[in-house]
Parts: sequence; C-alpha cells; structure tokens
Amino acid sequence: MAKEITSRESDYSQWYNDLVYKSGLADQSAVRGCMVIKPHGYALWENMRDILDDMFKKTGHVNAYFPLFVPKSLFEAEEKNAEGFAKECAIVTHYRLKADPNNKGKLIVDPEAKLEEELIVRPTSEAIIWNTYRDWIQSYRDLPILINQWANVVRWEMRTRPFLRTTEFLWQEGHTAHASKVEAIEEAEKMHDIYARFAEDYMAMPVIKGVKTANERFAGAEETYTIEAMMQDGKALQAGTSHYLGQNFAKAFEVKFLNDQNKEEFVYATSWGVSTRLIGALVMAHSDDDGLVLPPKLAPLQVIIVPIPKPTPEIKEVADRIIANLSSKGIRIKYDMDDRNRPGFKFAEYELKGVPVRIGIGARDLEQGVVEIARRDTKEKTTVPLDQVNEYVERLLADIQQYLYDRALDLRTANSHQVDDWNTFKEVIETKGGFIYAHWDGTSETEEAIKEQTKATIRCIPLDAKEEPGVCVFSGKPSTRRVLFAKAY
Amino acid sequence: MAKEITSRESDYSQWYNDLVYKSGLADQSAVRGCMVIKPHGYALWENMRDILDDMFKKTGHVNAYFPLFVPKSLFEAEEKNAEGFAKECAIVTHYRLKADPNNKGKLIVDPEAKLEEELIVRPTSEAIIWNTYRDWIQSYRDLPILINQWANVVRWEMRTRPFLRTTEFLWQEGHTAHASKVEAIEEAEKMHDIYARFAEDYMAMPVIKGVKTANERFAGAEETYTIEAMMQDGKALQAGTSHYLGQNFAKAFEVKFLNDQNKEEFVYATSWGVSTRLIGALVMAHSDDDGLVLPPKLAPLQVIIVPIPKPTPEIKEVADRIIANLSSKGIRIKYDMDDRNRPGFKFAEYELKGVPVRIGIGARDLEQGVVEIARRDTKEKTTVPLDQVNEYVERLLADIQQYLYDRALDLRTANSHQVDDWNTFKEVIETKGGFIYAHWDGTSETEEAIKEQTKATIRCIPLDAKEEPGVCVFSGKPSTRRVLFAKAY
Repeated sequence: MAKEITSRESDYSQWYNDLVYKSGLADQSAVRGCMVIKPHGYALWENMRDILDDMFKKTGHVNAYFPLFVPKSLFEAEEKNAEGFAKECAIVTHYRLKADPNNKGKLIVDPEAKLEEELIVRPTSEAIIWNTYRDWIQSYRDLPILINQWANVVRWEMRTRPFLRTTEFLWQEGHTAHASKVEAIEEAEKMHDIYARFAEDYMAMPVIKGVKTANERFAGAEETYTIEAMMQDGKALQAGTSHYLGQNFAKAFEVKFLNDQNKEEFVYATSWGVSTRLIGALVMAHSDDDGLVLPPKLAPLQVIIVPIPKPTPEIKEVADRIIANLSSKGIRIKYDMDDRNRPGFKFAEYELKGVPVRIGIGARDLEQGVVEIARRDTKEKTTVPLDQVNEYVERLLADIQQYLYDRALDLRTANSHQVDDWNTFKEVIETKGGFIYAHWDGTSETEEAIKEQTKATIRCIPLDAKEEPGVCVFSGKPSTRRVLFAKAY
Repeated sequence: MAKEITSRESDYSQWYNDLVYKSGLADQSAVRGCMVIKPHGYALWENMRDILDDMFKKTGHVNAYFPLFVPKSLFEAEEKNAEGFAKECAIVTHYRLKADPNNKGKLIVDPEAKLEEELIVRPTSEAIIWNTYRDWIQSYRDLPILINQWANVVRWEMRTRPFLRTTEFLWQEGHTAHASKVEAIEEAEKMHDIYARFAEDYMAMPVIKGVKTANERFAGAEETYTIEAMMQDGKALQAGTSHYLGQNFAKAFEVKFLNDQNKEEFVYATSWGVSTRLIGALVMAHSDDDGLVLPPKLAPLQVIIVPIPKPTPEIKEVADRIIANLSSKGIRIKYDMDDRNRPGFKFAEYELKGVPVRIGIGARDLEQGVVEIARRDTKEKTTVPLDQVNEYVERLLADIQQYLYDRALDLRTANSHQVDDWNTFKEVIETKGGFIYAHWDGTSETEEAIKEQTKATIRCIPLDAKEEPGVCVFSGKPSTRRVLFAKAY
C-alpha cells in the first residue's frame, strides 16, 4: 500500500530522491536536469514566496521584471561574473525553425535565422539589470533603488538533483543601487538577516550566519553573506546568499551618479537571492522514512480530518464545524470525503505528504464526544474532547513548529565539533561528518588543500565567531578565529 | 514640468508608447523586442495575477511549474501546434561559452558544447505538459487534472510594442485533462467566463464573448473561445482565450486512460491563458492625454494624500487618521511627505500614474474642517467635510470603477455598426473604424479576402449572436448570423 521509500539509514541520497518524487513535490522531465514542480511542491513554494515577498515589501522593496535573455556583449561586461557563469549557460543562437526537407513532419533549425548576437538565458540578472539602471540613475535623488524580481534562471549543471541543483530553477533576486558603500553594506546585511529569520522562524531550520571566503564568493561580489543549515546527514546546505557588490557592476556598465556634493561617483550595489533549493533544504532538514515532515507555517495543508472508517453525515457535520472555526483563524484545513480508500491508506498518504496534524473522527468516538488527534512529527496520538479541539489544534501547530526547530538545533549541536589538529579533522570528517569549527590561516591554498584531501569546504566565517588566538588546523600558521568547515550540498 | 505625452488625437499609437514609458509602467531593454516591466507596471500585474489566481483556485485549479525548454522532438509532435509556432521561437543550441582566443576578455560560444537535440524556449507549454501528463494518467480516477502555471514565454515577434506584443511576456496558462468531451468543453467555457468576468468586473472593460473562426483558432485547438474588447481608437483587442483541444495533444503524446467502462480512450484537453498584454488593454481602454486612468480595483495605489502647499505636523496628523481608517478597509492609500516638489508637480505626477483619488489637505481648509477630493477619471474636485471623508472615498472608488465601465461601454456602443453591404463596410472601416456586425458566408476565402481589402478580421462569432437569415456582406451567399469584424491589435 504505502509507496516504498528507501530509509535514510540505508541510503540517505536515495531516500531524498524517493521522497521528493513519491510525495508529489516534483517529477522528472524530458529536459535534461530540469524538473516539473508538481502542485504539492508548488504550493509549498507559493507559501514561501508570499512570506518572503511580504518581508521584502515591508523593508521598502518593490518587484519588477527584466528580460530572460542577456545579449552576449552585456553578459561579458563584468569580467569576474562572466567568467563565473560562462561554463554553465544555455545559449540562444537562432530564432526560427523550418520544415525538414528530408523528413516530412519534422522540423530543423533554420540556418538563415541565426542571431547576429547570441543571447544567454540568464543564470543571474546583474548584467541586464545594471545595463538598465544606467538609464534610471543620474543623481543621488534617484537612489536607492530597491528592486526584487521573481524569476526563472538557467545554469547548465552537469550533476543535478531535484530542487537542490537543477538546470532551471525558480528564485527571487534582489538588485539594489545605493549612493554609498555604508548604505549598500547595510542593505546586504539586512537581507542576510531576513533570510536567517525566514529560515529559522518559518522553515524551523536553524542557520549559521557568516561570510564566504574569497574563494567561495559570488562571481563579482566584494563580500558574500550566507546562511548555512545542517541537514540530517550532517552535511551543510547553503540556503541563501546576499552580496555586497561594491562598484564592480557600476563600473562595468558605467552607472554613475552626482552625489550630494555634486561630484560624479559610481553607484554601489547589492544582490541577494533564495531559490526553490529551499524546498530541498526543508525536505532534508525535517522529513523521515515515512515521508515529508513540514513546518506548519509553510505546509500547504495544515490539518486533515479523516472520517473513520468512512464518511457519514454525522461525521461531516462535526468536521464542518471544526473547519469553520479553524479556517476562520487562517488555518488551512480539509475534510477527506473520499469513500474509496480505508483510513490506514489515507493516514499513510497524508504522512507521506507531510500534513502536520490529522484529526480522526469515528462514529464511536463521537458518542463519547471525543476525536483522535495525531501529530505528524512525533506520530503521537491524543484523544481530545470535542469542545477542546479548536484550541488544541491551534496550540499543537505552534508546538510542532517549535519542536521541529528544537530538534534540528539539537541535531546540529550534537554534530558540531571544535577541532584543533589535522588528524582529528580528517577523522571527524570521515567518520562523523557534521560541522567542524577550526582555525584556518586565511589563505586560499590551505582552503583548497583541505578541500582536496577531505571534500570539506569552508562554509563560512561565522559572524559571531569570537576572536581567539590559535593555529591553523592544516598549516599550523597563526589564526585569530575559527571558521566553519563541512561537506556540503 | 509635466512629461510630454503625445495626444491621442494627434497620434494614438505614439500616445500609447509615451504613456507606457513615461508613467513608469515599462522601459525598453537591450534585448530586441523584450521590455523591462518597471515597478509600477509590475504592481499592476501582481494585482491582476492575485485576483485571477484566486478565481482559478476557487474553481478547483492548482498551480504547478513545467520546464522553460521544450526538446525539439516534443515540440514537433503535435503538428499543427508546431507549425503555428515554428517560425517564431528562440532556440537554444549550446550550453557553454569560452574565452575568445583572439579577443581578450571576450567570450564566444564553445562549439564543443553543442546540444545533441536543440531546445525550444517555450512559446506555450502544451507539448512539454502533455508529455508529462502521459505518466500521470492511467485511469478515469486520475482525471480531471486542473493545473495552471504562471510563467514567461517567448515568441519571436518581428514587430513589437510594449505589453501588446513582446518577444518575452508573462502569462498564465491553464492545461487541463478530462475524461470526456463534454467535461472538457465545460471547462473551456468556464474559463472563458472567468476571463470575461475579470475583464468586466476588475478591468472595467466590457468584452464581447465569442468563438474564433477556424482560421483564427489557436494552433492545435478544436475551438477557441475569446473575449474581445474595444480600445479608444475603435480597434479590437483580444484579451484572453480559452481552447478546447479535443484529443489532439493526447494523440500526439499517447495519453490514454481506462474509462469507467474499462475501455482505453484518449484524454480530452483544454488550455487557456491571459498575459501581460492585459496591461496594454487596460492602458488603452481608459487612459487619457494626461496619463493613466486605472480602475480602482486594480490600481496599485488607490488614494494619495497631498499636503498643500507642503507637509506640516497638523496635516500629517489628519492624514494619518484618514490612512488608519481607510487602510483598515483594505484601501491602498499613502501620504506624500516629500517636501521638495510643489503640489502642482505632484498632482501631475499622480495623474500620470493613474491614482484614482487624490485628497488635498491645506492648512486653511483644515481650519474650516474640510479637504479637497479630486477624482482622476473626470478630474472633478469636491470639498468634503473631514468627518465624511472615509465614507466619501469608499463610495467614490466604487463610483469610478463603475464610471469607467460605463464610459467604455458607451464608447463601444457608439462605435458598433450593423452593416449589410460591401461598400458601406469598406467605408465604415476606413472612416469610422469600430466594430462591424455583418453577415459572413462561413468560408475562409471570404474571410481572407475581406482581411486583404480592409485589414479587418473576424474577431469572433459572438456567443449571443441571434439566428437571423441574411446574405454575406462580401460574397452575397446565405448566412444565418452576424459575426464581429474589426481591425485589431
């Protein structure tokens, strides 16, 4: 009956794929590396999008939309950015098909419809946007520009996994323009905070806030702020980044403004984004071998009422009352009226889909004035008097949200290690995994040597790392604070 | 001071372009035929999207997301559809750039990164979606599938105009699958109704509901339902279409199901869509030589409060009270605190942007306990006692919404003609334009001949056309009802 899901213990990676496909979040597609986001997955994305969009708007941002295509000459203007994405972009070279003269009913690319200049399908939009900002900015009075865009982007990845790494993905990308460095850095930090708050308060996923090393920075950035979460297998997942871009794009696209001293200056920039990758993070952070476990604040459906063993008018009446009451409080709740499947089948289905709370209503229970309420995360069941159901469910949803966060935080704490010598470092990475806080000498050479030998990368230099004299775990050279190492998705 | 907008009378087409660019709805981009949708335009689109999305969900639809790219072999599977779009599609042929060996800092397409099979940037998604539905549908129990997608699409247009016809545009496309022809036709008609309701109730734009002739049908459809609106210059604009696709896509992609008689059958399909084109329709339906006129239900900002001549604490206090009250009723309202520009400048700006209601608050007015309220559509101003402002504004917003609809309907009535002979037909089209209701013999030859001689096309066969014996205005052959002719955008 239940759809077979590989257990986490036997094969974590297969467990993830099984879960994503069998719970109805996504499906494979006919296009290499691209997925279909199915209704259940898209509903989750809509909830995330709406909350983030609201957070952006409350901090003064507005949405806009820029073209999907970037002409090659613009794409290559900011050199580091171009170099960073050149190897993974889809390129439009023609604009017409024609009938294949040798194969009736088939089409071929019309060689006469070759573009004079190739178009890159955006892997990110700095180039096209900064080329536009040039026309919008003359003086400091035109600043700041605080724009966000919800869009699809394409990065030609060689190894893909649903949500975590796909050729096309959905995201939002903020692109702001400022009159000073200080203001731009403040903006980048503000959005970094928003991402951390979203991850912790809504996804119930604790994150480490930090900055990337020069090696791991976004191509074209002066500073990249990141939030890093731990998945259940101890690996790290980068869940959102915010970049201070300095004047790099302004210089590449000649975007100058007259400052309040009437002097010409290049504009300061930020960009920041999160993507459908967050859905992958959510799945890996909380779910179990029976299916998805979703934090109530994001679950498309929060409460399901299942009649036991099948629908009756009496049960429906009670269900309708509960629904009227809870949905008036903004709770997403449904009654399962299907009479073809048995309760056991339904229970498994809703567990697979990650509905946080299930209310079972049976004829016999009703006689006693009670219902059975089950929570998805711990699978605990409680018998609750009918007149207390509304209150109980409201509290339970809040409890589950908190419980998931606490559980994820406990997992992270249990799998975080301070390591001070190279042999222990290698051993921990190999046997336990998790997060390693260790001293690093600040050089790219050491960073790369560690990566080569252990596959662990510096996830970030945590913002709250305390100043502490030490020696680099690899080179023995002096260091002033610990950085976060981990294997990562 | 005011940004120069060409008047409608001197050049309607230029008026439209001026208005779109100067009111901040859109901007040109570096990509041929693609526009930038600026924050004001995007806010309008968000309002439209949210209302439509709600209408779709209330009728049982869910959202999903399918890949941007369509492999050529899938693209060509449904022959009519392929033929219809082959001449206007962007084609991805390569997936990597590399450094140009002859030109430092420049990039070229890497010839070694050529795709084995070209990818078409979706001009519409029937192909990729029906190829996916094949895996989702086995039995009648899997039906109906009622999915909608919000997405960008690309059609390589030779002549483009902002919103009305752009190479890339944003839209929604519904793709549903059904177990019977009757049910699929019902669905297509239901969505046709929703589009008409949206146009009339929210856009304040009366529409003629009808079906397209075979010539004008969507490529691959058995029947295309359309809503046609009249713009201020008398031309028609197709504002939304809903298609009954029969079993065409099911056959092309081998999508069969076991019906309730346990017999295998091809699935029945519909698709339906509206796009950012609606923004163009909205602009052309209501706006004037001073700027945008937006129906209150869709206006990003509904009420602006302007201090006269400049902000003071007293005025702010009154404004804050009005805002608290009206925004609690869901009205989008703002106070203009800027102290650099004079009221006259601000008035012109808000008129340009189409804010439906303006409240002017002056120190002297306050002494008398009144404010001045101006409506954007008629430019009428009224002095309103402070204690009646909230009520007055609420009623005024509803009045403006109704007035815009009535005015558009009057315009359409005044410019609709019943024509019974060919000379009059030609004369009306040439001198007056507008909608012509005339008899047509039902043949494509006549339809094309009329188009060639007058540029008028059959916009639709109106659903409410009464049976009425007549003779074709062009051929003199018998006809049973009038169809709607017009020049169109």
